[in-house]
Parts: sequence; C-alpha cells; structure tokens
Amino acid sequence: MRYDVFGLENPVMDLLAQVPDAFLAKAGIEKNRWAMIDQARHAELLRALDGTPVAYEAGGSCANTIVGIAQLGAKTAYCGMVGADEHGQIYAKKLQEAGVTPFLRATTVPTGSALIFVTPDAGRTMNLFLGACRELGPQDVPVDEIRASRWLYVTGYVWDSGDQKEAATLALRTAKAAGIPVAFSLADPVYATRHREDFLRLIRDYAELVFANRDEALALTGRDHAQEALRDLRKLCPAVALTLGHAGALISIHGDTAYVESYPVHPVDTTGAGDAFAAGFLYGRVTGASPLQCGRLGAYFASRVITQIGPRLSGDVRGLLAPVLDDVRE
Amino acid sequence: MRYDVFGLENPVMDLLAQVPDAFLAKAGIEKNRWAMIDQARHAELLRALDGTPVAYEAGGSCANTIVGIAQLGAKTAYCGMVGADEHGQIYAKKLQEAGVTPFLRATTVPTGSALIFVTPDAGRTMNLFLGACRELGPQDVPVDEIRASRWLYVTGYVWDSGDQKEAATLALRTAKAAGIPVAFSLADPVYATRHREDFLRLIRDYAELVFANRDEALALTGRDHAQEALRDLRKLCPAVALTLGHAGALISIHGDTAYVESYPVHPVDTTGAGDAFAAGFLYGRVTGASPLQCGRLGAYFASRVITQIGPRLSGDVRGLLAPVLDDVRE
Repeated sequence: MRYDVFGLENPVMDLLAQVPDAFLAKAGIEKNRWAMIDQARHAELLRALDGTPVAYEAGGSCANTIVGIAQLGAKTAYCGMVGADEHGQIYAKKLQEAGVTPFLRATTVPTGSALIFVTPDAGRTMNLFLGACRELGPQDVPVDEIRASRWLYVTGYVWDSGDQKEAATLALRTAKAAGIPVAFSLADPVYATRHREDFLRLIRDYAELVFANRDEALALTGRDHAQEALRDLRKLCPAVALTLGHAGALISIHGDTAYVESYPVHPVDTTGAGDAFAAGFLYGRVTGASPLQCGRLGAYFASRVITQIGPRLSGDVRGLLAPVLDDVRE
Repeated sequence: MRYDVFGLENPVMDLLAQVPDAFLAKAGIEKNRWAMIDQARHAELLRALDGTPVAYEAGGSCANTIVGIAQLGAKTAYCGMVGADEHGQIYAKKLQEAGVTPFLRATTVPTGSALIFVTPDAGRTMNLFLGACRELGPQDVPVDEIRASRWLYVTGYVWDSGDQKEAATLALRTAKAAGIPVAFSLADPVYATRHREDFLRLIRDYAELVFANRDEALALTGRDHAQEALRDLRKLCPAVALTLGHAGALISIHGDTAYVESYPVHPVDTTGAGDAFAAGFLYGRVTGASPLQCGRLGAYFASRVITQIGPRLSGDVRGLLAPVLDDVRE
C-alpha cells in the first residue's frame, strides 16, 4: 500500500489569537461555539483584533490528524482545495515538511481560514471562512490514491457545499468498493446536529470506525448520556471512539467496550485535542495496536497537544509520545 | 424477605474537623491517607485540635451505605460491635432513627472512632481507632437474619482481627449457602494492598458484585490502568462497579461494560462518596433498575454527599435524589 491513511477535507489556515472573554462579547461571538463566516466578516474580525498577536498555522481538523499520523511515522496523504494564493502555497509546503503527500487543487477563491479565539480558560471559539474548500468536487478526488491506501479518513467538516458532498461521497464509495476501511469523525456538535440524518447514514453505510466527542455523540444520537450514545453508535458501525474530555475516552470495538483514562495535564489551548486523539488512535490501528493501546496513544497525543498553543505538536513528536509508544511495542 | 440489604462491618463514630494542611504536617499525618491509631494517639490528636470544632456523626463505611439505602426507602439491617459507652448508645439510636434494624453487640472496649481531617481542598485524611469493632466474632453474627435478606453487603474494613475475619467469613458462607448475593467493597487502597490475596479469594469465592474505586482496583490487581483492573476483576466476579472520582464510573455486569458519567459539582468534603455510590447502586439493584440506572443512582447520590460536610445526607434524601429516581421509574 502507498499510504497508511489518506485524508480528505478542508485545508484551512488557522489564525490563533489569545483574547479576553470581553473581546468575544464585544464582537458578538458566542463563546466555545463554532460559527461559519463570510469573507467580509473575516476581515472585520481581523481588524477588531487590532494589534493582538495572531499565530498562523496550517490547520484543518483532518489535516491536523493526517500530519499527526505522519509525525508518528506512518505514511499519509491529504486531498483538499486551496486558493491560488500565499496561504495555499504555505499550506502545501507545510504538508510536505510534515511528510504528508499533498493532493491539493487550487482555485481562484481564497484559501479557507479559521479564526480561533483562545480564552484564558483554554476554551476555543472558532469562526470559519471556508473559501476555496467549498470548491472541492468529485473531479478533484484522486481515486487511485485512495485505492492504494490502508485507511480513508474523512470528517463531517467536508459536508458543506454540494460539490464537497459529491467529492466526499465519491471518496467513501471508492474506499468501500476497494474494501478499504473508513474512519469518520463527527467533527463538531453543530455539524452533527445540522447533518444528523446524513451522518447517521454515512456512518451506517461506510464507516468502520467513528470518532466523536461527548457533545457530538449526544447531538447526533439525541441522547442525554455518553453510554447511551455509545450504544446507538455501535449499532451503526463496528468501532467507536467516544472522547470524554478530561474524563478520558470510551473505545467500543465489535461490542467490547474499554475505558481509556486521560493523562492529567494543565491545558493551555484545547485546539486540536480531538484531531490529535484521532491521529494517535489511527496510528495505533495501522501498526496493529490493541483497542486499548490505540485509545492510549490517542489520549496521550491529545494530552501533549493541549499543553501548547495550536492544534499540532512541534518538535520530536515520537520522542514526546515515547512513554506510550514504548508501551504499545511491548 | 425481611431485609433488602444486610450490612456487617465496623460501627465507628466519625469525628470531623476542618483543618489547614499545616495541622496535618505538624501532627505528622500523611495527607489524604488513612492510618490506624491506638487509643492513646487518638486522645493526643483530639488534644492537638485544641478548640477546632469537631462534628460527631455515626459513621463507618458500611453503615453509611446501609443508612443511605434505608433513606432511599429499602429495608436494611446492620451488624457490628460497639462499646458499652455513650458513643455506642448514640450509634444504635442513629441507626434506628435512619430506619435501619441494628444488630449491635456491646463490649467493654470503647466504641470505635474515626478522626477525619478535612482540608481546604476537600481532601479527606482519616485516623482510625477501631476499638470495640475488633471484638466482633462469629458468635455475634445473626445468621438467621442474613438468611432472611436479599443481599449481604460487607467491606474490606472488616478484615482486621482474627475474630472479625471469622465473623465476616461466617456471614459470607451463610449468604452463599442460602443463595443470597454478596456485594463486597474493597474499602481502601491500604486494605486492598495489605490483604490482596485474601480479598482476591473472597471476591472469587463469594462476591456477586464488587465495589472499588480506581486506587483500590489498581492496588488489588497490580495494574496501572482502570480498564485492565476492571478486566481482572470481572474475571473474578459477575458484576463490578469501578468508580473513577470526577471522571465517573465503569459498570461491568456479565461482561457488558457501561460508562456512568459523574454529576458535576463543587465538592466540599469527599467523605462518604464511595459509600453513597454503593448505597445508590445497591438500592437500584434491589429495585430492579438496569446496570446503567444503578450506576447513575450511585453517582448522583455521591454527588449530593460531597457537596456537604460528612458522609451521610441529611434531610429529604428521596427528594434530593428525585431527578435520578424518576429516571429509574420511567
């Protein structure tokens, strides 16, 4: 196989700013919520930051995961649409630097951009301008590369424009026809609510493994408790990884449920926690780790990411994750 | 059946004092740890409190649970040894007031007493003088009453003197011979470590259900992770309730594992959290609730107890627990 994991989603540049709660209130932004914005509102919010330092980072939920898997040592590829602009070029360069094989197309619409406001309590409030991402169509999906991969990883964020849905569906169908397992991440409670019927169908029809945090799982299933949401999800697909924030995670594979403890840390920015969990977990899957070990790799990766600003780990990632990687090798 | 749950253990008076961390350091007491003390040391520590208000409460881990079950509306009984003194009389009266049928014997040794130091972080440090409790022997066990009960509940705290061990073993054997299920609580990490082999054997030979918090489960099984400890425990007995503090609890019944979320509160005193969990859980068992509902009853009862000082709820307990009791009745 050419790639261990092939990802498809929205290549967006993350613009991270640490702001007081008052900034959100003044700008009329609901805290710890995600919102879609257009190009004009994006520019307006950048102006409102007025000198607040903004960190640039190649981001996007799926890309964060795909880069994380590559950092751990597996072979990955990533498909998405950028703009024919500087952000698009930086994005491709960042993927290549991380060892990810990019399958990026460029369009005249600007590269997507996520304004991420980090509040003093390490909360994360995102305003997303999708831009070029929405232009990805089925003609941009490299089906032969998907067929040459061991896993396909797609998140709910790709479920936006008609073109994107067609592109994602083609990728899912290609994987299914080729017997390649699909991992699907619910991405966000807002998406899980908005596209409930579609996501339930996608999970049932295509997914071997679904990633969801507690809020997403409750939103999708309409349940009040994580355990009930887990039971619903595991009826739809063979494996479920349900993350519980600082309370840990539940892993259910073929009906056997395991609890994964969280690694206690003092979070400074929870951006990318779920993406990192998926990275560690999928790396475990492609290297033959047990479900519990997969969960621990995910939980430990997430615990490292939230102790720094931004959604990706920098530096010697295998070194940082050595305590758990060693455990898996045993 | 005469009783829903019959408890056997150590009737001790709890003496609760809120102290700064410095008090523990000065008195040479290791924080958040449990220690056994003799009568002289008990008197010395009372003197050291020097005017600090001390709240008296009829306590003991098993009795807390048995009283909790009675408060929820089930029929309970309790067996143990007190001193022929004022504390012993108060103890019997408190049980009766709570609706528990007491089977208390009295001896010349003073009633057992637990000095519980509550630090500002809601931590709990206990110094225990067992006194009369250690005198309980097989001749004091009302075997006919156990045979007339639906469940027997015993905790590891009873595993102390030779007499106590004989008494507990008689109770366990009586229940087993009569086909009455036994719930066993590990009580404490120190006990779980000290009596590891005995407890593993007791669980395997007698228990239908075992209660353990994370520290106790890890101590007993020698594992590093809650999930591995759970797997070990469920090989020994049909049902396991493994509590995870603020992270919730895991319930495993006949191989099916369910996760119970904790109810978020600001704890002021975690004394009795585990006892309350067992009370809610066992009440669920005797009223035919599902494993998940049993867990929720336990978790909710525990969440109420830790928001007040002391190990038992006062007031309208069924009213306080109505949100979860209603859920169970649905």
